[in-house]
Amino acid sequence: MIKHNEYFAGAVQSLTLDDHDKPATVGVMSVGRYEFGTEAAELMKVIEGELIVKLPGTEDWITYLSGTQFHVPANSKFQLQVPVSTAYLCVYG
Amino acid sequence: MIKHNEYFAGAVQSLTLDDHDKPATVGVMSVGRYEFGTEAAELMKVIEGELIVKLPGTEDWITYLSGTQFHVPANSKFQLQVPVSTAYLCVYG
Repeated sequence: MIKHNEYFAGAVQSLTLDDHDKPATVGVMSVGRYEFGTEAAELMKVIEGELIVKLPGTEDWITYLSGTQFHVPANSKFQLQVPVSTAYLCVYG
Repeated sequence: MIKHNEYFAGAVQSLTLDDHDKPATVGVMSVGRYEFGTEAAELMKVIEGELIVKLPGTEDWITYLSGTQFHVPANSKFQLQVPVSTAYLCVYG
């Protein structure tokens, strides 16, 4: 069953994708600045839009455009600037 | 604001993606068979999974895997077989 999740008062929303090798979600981030915490490691793929990301252990903000991806370690926090409504795929584990 | 849409009693769900050249949604389709009708033309991109599609005016079922896409004309119906939970991006117009 598809589960719909909302974060930051609906500014970020996601849908679960079941029955694949690893749990995953697709979602949309509205324009804004966010901090997320991970439990499992996460592979984030930008489907459409742009994410500017500060990964744990670095002070650099790196831009990821449509079709690019980045890894976030488990049990860590990462920060995002979202300059345009952005669709993403997140694969856990 | 992100809008969450549900179809077929939640078996298909989508999230709107605003502020791009064309309106778009990302979504998930559960395993099943569906028929959709279009108003505007639609570009469907398979993000993760598999869609088996019968487009209007043809009797052929064509398989689209992750990373592939297909076009559906405006004001038409198309049929889908979804063998695994599938994430997609739909761009309208």
